[in-house]
Amino acid sequence: MQAAHDAGCAPVAEGRRGRQASTMRPNITPDIDLAERLFAELHAATFDGVGITRAAYGEGERIAHAIVRREAEAIGLECAVDAAGNLLMALPGEDRAAPCVVIGSHLDSVASGGNFDGAAGVLAGLATVAGMRAAGFVPARDVTVLAVRAEEAGAWFPTSFPGSRAATGTLPPEALAVRRMDTGRSLAEHMAEEGFDPEAVRAGVCLLPPARVAAYVELHIEQGPVLEAEGVAAAIVTGIPGSRRLREGRVLGEYNHSGATPRRYRRDAAIALAELAVAMDERWSELEARGHRMVCTFCVLATTEAAGFTKIPGEAVFQLDVRSVQPASVDALFAALADRVAQIEARRGVRFELGPETGSAAVPMDAAVRAGLRQAAASLGIPVIEMASGGGHDAAAFAQAGVPSGMVFVRNQYGSHNPHEAMRMADFAAATAIVARWAAQAAG
Amino acid sequence: MQAAHDAGCAPVAEGRRGRQASTMRPNITPDIDLAERLFAELHAATFDGVGITRAAYGEGERIAHAIVRREAEAIGLECAVDAAGNLLMALPGEDRAAPCVVIGSHLDSVASGGNFDGAAGVLAGLATVAGMRAAGFVPARDVTVLAVRAEEAGAWFPTSFPGSRAATGTLPPEALAVRRMDTGRSLAEHMAEEGFDPEAVRAGVCLLPPARVAAYVELHIEQGPVLEAEGVAAAIVTGIPGSRRLREGRVLGEYNHSGATPRRYRRDAAIALAELAVAMDERWSELEARGHRMVCTFCVLATTEAAGFTKIPGEAVFQLDVRSVQPASVDALFAALADRVAQIEARRGVRFELGPETGSAAVPMDAAVRAGLRQAAASLGIPVIEMASGGGHDAAAFAQAGVPSGMVFVRNQYGSHNPHEAMRMADFAAATAIVARWAAQAAG
Repeated sequence: MQAAHDAGCAPVAEGRRGRQASTMRPNITPDIDLAERLFAELHAATFDGVGITRAAYGEGERIAHAIVRREAEAIGLECAVDAAGNLLMALPGEDRAAPCVVIGSHLDSVASGGNFDGAAGVLAGLATVAGMRAAGFVPARDVTVLAVRAEEAGAWFPTSFPGSRAATGTLPPEALAVRRMDTGRSLAEHMAEEGFDPEAVRAGVCLLPPARVAAYVELHIEQGPVLEAEGVAAAIVTGIPGSRRLREGRVLGEYNHSGATPRRYRRDAAIALAELAVAMDERWSELEARGHRMVCTFCVLATTEAAGFTKIPGEAVFQLDVRSVQPASVDALFAALADRVAQIEARRGVRFELGPETGSAAVPMDAAVRAGLRQAAASLGIPVIEMASGGGHDAAAFAQAGVPSGMVFVRNQYGSHNPHEAMRMADFAAATAIVARWAAQAAG
Repeated sequence: MQAAHDAGCAPVAEGRRGRQASTMRPNITPDIDLAERLFAELHAATFDGVGITRAAYGEGERIAHAIVRREAEAIGLECAVDAAGNLLMALPGEDRAAPCVVIGSHLDSVASGGNFDGAAGVLAGLATVAGMRAAGFVPARDVTVLAVRAEEAGAWFPTSFPGSRAATGTLPPEALAVRRMDTGRSLAEHMAEEGFDPEAVRAGVCLLPPARVAAYVELHIEQGPVLEAEGVAAAIVTGIPGSRRLREGRVLGEYNHSGATPRRYRRDAAIALAELAVAMDERWSELEARGHRMVCTFCVLATTEAAGFTKIPGEAVFQLDVRSVQPASVDALFAALADRVAQIEARRGVRFELGPETGSAAVPMDAAVRAGLRQAAASLGIPVIEMASGGGHDAAAFAQAGVPSGMVFVRNQYGSHNPHEAMRMADFAAATAIVARWAAQAAG
């Protein structure tokens, strides 16, 4: 293997090329049995009768952290917990002062979710360092497995990645005030209740300042159907998409008698919205044909309760979610939105109220880390594809903090955030092997 | 005026041509002041604080019938009430045995509706016969003003025109079992409570068997925006549309993550429904351009409660209402529906469940009555247009019973079935003049 391929940790490896001949690194075999045992134990400990519940800063997450820490200590890792409760499990390297390589993900789940979303990444890290230990491999720098708190923003705290942002000291203080959706208590209160130190988090105290992290890699179930459909066990993630979102869109027309109102006198809000949705769908299709990669979803598209038989709908509401790793793709679709809204308003006598727009910036994965992961897969003979993520992940927080970051997706079945979530251990083993190979290179 | 124009009652007038020279008929001036006074009295007596409420077989309808009957008796009309509570107010003709001319409409209203929907037709009849009386005009046959019960099927009893069908002895017995939507009690019970005779209705006992009615004409507010937009006070109705209706349509796709599911793996129920709605709207527009006259409305078009942000909609529901006086037009649109449903299912991996189809047959107005009404308007110099009705009316029940029937629409504002319903008395006077002129011809 040539040094030029060792791109995953290139920014920090520059001064140490002399040591990087591939012959110096053993083939690390991740301890998949360990991971499988821990998946079973996590399931047994946090099954709620329907699915898996590991509430952020709640009982299930606490149990999961305890299980993982116990195992890390058994492997002989150096364990530390930061002010926000994130668990760091380090395999010490030769140079303890060198920026470390982090393999991480989260241990919380949605309510009645599945066992693999999040936990797979943490257990992949443990399997990797257990494999390194078993092989007698001492990396040049620490390899740190990270179990993050509170990643499931849609389920518990309505803010993005509070755990991983606290881990890197990049959580803005106001995020500590957001309230858990079920308890109504703030993130700071929940941290304190679990024995952590929200005031230190507020002050930016952390154990993984970005300058101290050489690279971050996260294994995660794909959550979508692509790998299953493509017949591939794993993917290298190109980036986490940005979004532009309308959650409170409305179309205002006029309620009229559906029998007594001829076509030219109508101001039908529902047909106007349907026309917009179809136009956006067609524009999306055109853009894809020209190479754009994106998704466009009318999550809600509906007449309201005032609608009913023999009435022309006078109002309709919608929620629109447009995402792409390429901001230009999202913007192209929103440009079409503006055009079509104006056309439809003029032709159908309705008025669109788009409401507040929210969104997030796209987070590309680091080119060198991606290249390192591709190379690891190639050297192991594991076929992979490259694809954009659909949802957000802790890797986005690390990337936004300036850490070279990458992700490996594992093929899974039945999506995520539901009790039917599934993943074959053979696929997990393949993806973890890629992570382990990359980590041995990056930390070697 | 030529006898050939006296088409309104041609079927029964054949044997009496010798008497039909126009010089024998006076110009009848309807008593609009009487009508205006009664509109005010009806409003005062049945205003519920928000709008007008005259429940079918309820208090408001009872009050309205009492007011109208009192006035009819004051004019000197012969009043009779049939087994269903319909009120007949006859201006006796020379030949009491000859089939009569009926001018009718209903006196019930929706809850918190307007003062003109229904009542305008009854008061137009009273104004007409009061005008005949004042002119000393004795018609050749009875001119009977009819105040029908329970026309507002959408508001009270979910069956079409029980009052006017009972008036002609054509109400099927099972209709007596339908329950008033607010009270839960049957039509038969409500009839009995008001002092009428549901068993006689069941037996078909009636005062206006079709063979005894020469023609039926109904004045009604338009309920739609056409006459207001066209700047015309009145219209001659061509027919009451038939309909084909889907009230329980569903589209079944698959809920998936809106970020993680690329276009080709989606089974989006909402976009499939939007595509169907837009396709139907386009087909409607094409058919109109080719001369079809119809309306097509997705009254409900909606994702369900299970929809929400970051989910691709897996289900959507719809209600479809297609109407035309020409059955072929409705059928053409439903043919397009079947085509497009199949195409969209194949392309988008969804399944449409159209659910049960309901509907009604179109009821054309009688050509001779229409011609008579046009001629009456022309001879008075009142500009009219011809148009299809949007909703159903008692005239449909008379037409379906075999009675030559027609309608005159009056321009109105703010639609109907709401407290803002409005009608200018000048427009009412113009439309009533047409009815009076026609009635004098038809009964002369």
